[in-house]
Amino acid sequence: MSRTSITRLSRKASSDRATLDRLLDTVHIGHFAIVADDPHPVVLPTAVVRDGDRVLAHGSTGSRWLRHLAAGAPTCLAVTAFDALVVARSAFESSMRYRSAVLFGRCHAVTGQNAKRRALDTITDALIPGRSAEVRASTKKELAAVLVVALPIAEWSLKVSEGWPDDPPDDVAGAAWAGVLPVVQRYDQPLAAPDLRDGVALPASVQRLLTG
Amino acid sequence: MSRTSITRLSRKASSDRATLDRLLDTVHIGHFAIVADDPHPVVLPTAVVRDGDRVLAHGSTGSRWLRHLAAGAPTCLAVTAFDALVVARSAFESSMRYRSAVLFGRCHAVTGQNAKRRALDTITDALIPGRSAEVRASTKKELAAVLVVALPIAEWSLKVSEGWPDDPPDDVAGAAWAGVLPVVQRYDQPLAAPDLRDGVALPASVQRLLTG
Repeated sequence: MSRTSITRLSRKASSDRATLDRLLDTVHIGHFAIVADDPHPVVLPTAVVRDGDRVLAHGSTGSRWLRHLAAGAPTCLAVTAFDALVVARSAFESSMRYRSAVLFGRCHAVTGQNAKRRALDTITDALIPGRSAEVRASTKKELAAVLVVALPIAEWSLKVSEGWPDDPPDDVAGAAWAGVLPVVQRYDQPLAAPDLRDGVALPASVQRLLTG
Repeated sequence: MSRTSITRLSRKASSDRATLDRLLDTVHIGHFAIVADDPHPVVLPTAVVRDGDRVLAHGSTGSRWLRHLAAGAPTCLAVTAFDALVVARSAFESSMRYRSAVLFGRCHAVTGQNAKRRALDTITDALIPGRSAEVRASTKKELAAVLVVALPIAEWSLKVSEGWPDDPPDDVAGAAWAGVLPVVQRYDQPLAAPDLRDGVALPASVQRLLTG
């Protein structure tokens, strides 16, 4: 049985690449799993950003698990959106609306100063669109301290749960409420850094995140 | 080197159990990693709820990976909160405020109808406080269809990043803005199920979730 065949609740499985991309372009927290030497699995939570047909992650060259990833250890990356609570008329039928992507494969390190710089700009601009053009370029020393890894979007599965409570007729006829509680995630008003100089205005990139 | 020793950025490491509990009591999406037969790691995203000194998860008895967990496969569970974007004066120093817990160990299945019922009520009430008292009890057939697993809170590590941009003096003196964009997650107005009978009022449990 393939890792990416979803054997249960197949009505939830999706092979739609556009739906996958939308999830990866919305949720930027990913969980990479790798196998330690024991062998015991280890999860590495980190920021992830889609760049075409690959997913980028980055961190310090001092990060042991990131170095394992960069070395091509077999990995699994999960990106999950919690979209709503599904409140059914019984605890048993209550659940969540979610979108869950699981990608399999091996990362490689993004090397070369230009490729690294482009990858880091892509990451910055995915989190804060337009930000890379507002700040100075990374120095050579900074680039050297960062490890960038890329996971090809090749072997993946996607589950999308977007339904309503599915209560049996006896429960529907009963007194309990049923419905959906959507989850909203947004940015709150920005807090200026304690050392921000007087007169430095909020940049357009951050303003767009607030109104967008 | 132990799995739970945090070797980098040790100022971010926390061994405070109360901070761990607060995270586990706030974020209910967890990512379990297990090792498949290949051996290739697999990530299982699922709802997780703390119950004293253990973390509960549940799902269908038909879920292959959940059965692996229940059988005691070595696992790693990550629970991550994305608290804010840290917008520094350079891309390099920009980061996130987050809380990240990683637990190691082996799950066991929660068995016996009473223990299972209590565990499921705990899960229901962690997600929607007070809900279990508003709905009918699970039937024996329902209980039999659910697999509940528990992971002891024993071997864990916790990273908490809650700082401000840490820009070098040259950047602080420059023109770029710096600060923090807090992430807010809340529930939006509830949507009644299409088959909700007229006159069934929103329950107290859901009302409380909305007013916070």
